[in-house]
Parts: sequence; C-alpha cells; structure tokens
Amino acid sequence: MKHIVSRDNAHFRDLKKLCHSSRERRKAGRIVLDGMHLIESYVNAFGHPEEVVVSEVAVLRDEIARFLEEYAPGRRVTALADALFAELATVDTPSGIMAIAMRPRSVHGLNREADAVLLDGVQDPGNLGSILRTAAAAGFRQVLLSPECAQAWSPKTLRAAMGAHFLLDIHESSDLPAFLAAYRGQSLATVLEASEALHSLDLGSSVAWVFGSEGQGVSGEVAELATRRVHIPMPGKTESLNVAAAAAVCLFETVRQRLSGTS
Amino acid sequence: MKHIVSRDNAHFRDLKKLCHSSRERRKAGRIVLDGMHLIESYVNAFGHPEEVVVSEVAVLRDEIARFLEEYAPGRRVTALADALFAELATVDTPSGIMAIAMRPRSVHGLNREADAVLLDGVQDPGNLGSILRTAAAAGFRQVLLSPECAQAWSPKTLRAAMGAHFLLDIHESSDLPAFLAAYRGQSLATVLEASEALHSLDLGSSVAWVFGSEGQGVSGEVAELATRRVHIPMPGKTESLNVAAAAAVCLFETVRQRLSGTS
Repeated sequence: MKHIVSRDNAHFRDLKKLCHSSRERRKAGRIVLDGMHLIESYVNAFGHPEEVVVSEVAVLRDEIARFLEEYAPGRRVTALADALFAELATVDTPSGIMAIAMRPRSVHGLNREADAVLLDGVQDPGNLGSILRTAAAAGFRQVLLSPECAQAWSPKTLRAAMGAHFLLDIHESSDLPAFLAAYRGQSLATVLEASEALHSLDLGSSVAWVFGSEGQGVSGEVAELATRRVHIPMPGKTESLNVAAAAAVCLFETVRQRLSGTS
Repeated sequence: MKHIVSRDNAHFRDLKKLCHSSRERRKAGRIVLDGMHLIESYVNAFGHPEEVVVSEVAVLRDEIARFLEEYAPGRRVTALADALFAELATVDTPSGIMAIAMRPRSVHGLNREADAVLLDGVQDPGNLGSILRTAAAAGFRQVLLSPECAQAWSPKTLRAAMGAHFLLDIHESSDLPAFLAAYRGQSLATVLEASEALHSLDLGSSVAWVFGSEGQGVSGEVAELATRRVHIPMPGKTESLNVAAAAAVCLFETVRQRLSGTS
C-alpha cells in the first residue's frame, strides 16, 4: 500500500485533478467512485477498479479493512493522510474510500424497439441519479440523455444512483427528436397540460418515457414528437411533483400493469 | 426600501444569524423563504411575510421588480449589496430574493382516522422536501416526522418541497409508535423483506404510509406496529429505490386506486 502524506506528491495532485475536474475525467476515460457501496457495485459488474484510495482513519473501519484484505494483494491501493483525503471529497459526506475506474462504455447501440427512458434537460445530479436508480429497479435498461442534462458520470450522480449506472446502457448527449422519430413502440412525454391521464394508458408493450427539466419540463419539440402527452392525476391542491418522483410514478405504473397483465 | 451596504450593520448581522442557524430560527419562530416561488406559495396560504430581502442586482429582474412594486408599499423591504446577500445564501443557487416569515403552526391536532404519511428518520433534506411535495400533490395532509428526521423547516427542505409545507399539517418530533398503536385505519410500513406486494393492497380507505431512513429503512419497532409490511415489486436487477421515489410510487398507487375505484 502506497502512503502519501504530502500535498506536493505528484500522484496526489493527479488524483485531485481527477476528482475535481470533469474534463480531466473525460480526457482520462475514468470515473471516481465514492464509498463502499458504489465500489462493490462496480466490482460486481466489471471486476476490479484500477486504484483504490483510502484515508488513514478509514483503514481501521471493519467494512473497509475486510475489503482491503481481500482486494489489496497485488493491486494498487493508496492511503492518504486524512487531511489530503478530505481535499479529494466530491460529495457532501465522504466515506473514507474511493476508487478510480475505467468509465464503462455502452456496449449496446440504441434499440428503437426496446423500452427506454429519455431525459430532456434534467439538471440536478441528485434527480438524475435517482431516476437512473429507479429505471434500473423497474427493469428498464436503455437511458438517453439530452445534451442539456447533468453529467451522468459525475461523482454526485453516481452517488445518487447507488450503482444503477452499471446495470444500464446510458447514452449521453443523445438526439432525442431523432430517436423519437424512429422509435417503433409507444413514446410518452410527461406534460402537465391538456394530455392523457397516466392510468388510461396501456403500457403492456415497449414504451419510451420522456421526462423533462426541473424548471421547464419536456421541451415543445420533443413533446410533439412523442406518441402521447401524459399527465399524472394529482388530487392535491398542488400540481407539482419533483421530476424524479414523477419518473418513479410512471415507471412503476408500467411495472404494475405488466406484472398484473392489465392496464 | 432600506438599503444595507455594510457588514457591520446590526440588522444584517441579525439576518445572517437567522439564515445560518436553525437554533436562531427556532428561537425566533421564523422561517427563511428563498426564491419567488416559495414566497408566493407562502403569500397564497398565509398572507404577507414580515420582511422581504433582495440583492441589488435582483431588484432589476422583471419578476422581482413586479412583486416589489405590488408588495413594497408600507411593508418592510431590505435591499442588500450583492456581496452581503451572497453571505446569506442558504441554498446552492440563491435566487436574489428571500423573505423572513412566521413559522406556520399546525392548526390541526393529530387525526387517527385520516390519511397520514409517517417518516421514520428520513435524513436528507432534499428527500424530505420531495416527499412533502409528493404528499401534497397526492392529497395527503397529515405528515408525522420522527425525531431523527431532517428539519422540516430548514431552507433546503423548504426549497425542495416547493411550497408544499403550506398545504400540509407537519408534525415534527412525533412519537410514531404511539400514533401507530392508536391509528384506526390501515398502517403500511415499507420494508424490503418478507412482506406483501404493493399491488395486492386495498387502499380505498384511510392509510398511514410509513417510509424509513435512507440507510436503515423503517426501524423494527415501527414496522412491527404497522398493520402490514409492504414492498414494491421490482423486476430489475437491483432492489433499491431512493426513499422519495418509493414514497411517490406508494402514494400515487393510493391515488390510482381511489380514482379508479378499484384495487
């Protein structure tokens, strides 16, 4: 295990760049995984990451000590003085362990006949991560992000998705109008006004769900290209759901209909 | 309009304390509302707040200028130098306008026969706010928070709930076991293991939904006191939803059944 205590160490400076610059991460084709849960999800999907970085104090924690005992032999582990580790922190509550790993590539091309989730400008990394997590739990695999979306592979999005990234085919900077124009199933854009009620839909065969940005919703061009425009009936005095909550309602209504065999 | 440009101004120092200390806000019985949307939601529910605080640059924005024109005469408005306003910021993207208002009190006592949402240790203010927003949209009114929950009236929770606070009866530091023991409807605790499927429930009459903390879920004691323990069927390779997403699925399954008249 390599041990770094100096801020001037060249490897520490490289790690810091990777942790704090999305440009550096993209250039290097790498992602930063913060916390045991994310690291284990990556290991289960792709095998071991390139490097594991721990803080001195975290090495003493049972869960991390066990992982290192099993993982460390013959592999790259770097221990950082606690103050140095704190400088790498990319999320609010750093866990004491992170890993640097190759960024997975989508192995599957776009499939115009399969279920899909399309995100049109979802800008909050927490919302984006929550939607990815919901999509994976609902059994959706294909996710397309418009260029205006938050970065799918940022540490904040990764943390919020809790490993869902590694179960999905994520297509960033996608051309949503082109996909919708060629889509062979039913495409459904969530909009508030003048649209069909969620529960009147038949969701038995392939669907492409479209969710919009926090402030503006689905853009007009994208909504027009969808087969239907859909709203969630809301009996309360407010007609307002967080986009990740709306996505959960729609994706799990799809699950419900398919499990029960009825719409 | 009062104009403050000095950090040493006594009123500015008071504002800063209120913005950054939950203890000060509690002591004063006040809340801080960041952004036009929240302020307007408050005005619609309770009338005008005590004081409106704007940054110099924000006064020039159309939406804020219109609001001040209508609101300002005879009321307390404070304009702060932009650098001073920035020091008050309580959320990531401050909007340039905030208000200080009386913290609303729950006017209704606990109702053991009405629908309710019980939160057992939901710790992230964003999740808490999203659940409040979902509850209001689904037509639930009564929300009980265990003492371990994030603060319901913090600026972050308020921002995430987008005004839902003012449509709800929020009971902080509630004794969830006592409420469940006396509840006269069906109480439903969401847990992953060995429980009934969401879609097999009959949600036609009063329900108390219980959602647990991000890490630990619903505590054993609380889950045991519920009428049923319930899971959301998840066909994906992960059995993991964000708590706010899970709450959206459960509360809107309740809405679906009641609107359709069937379970």
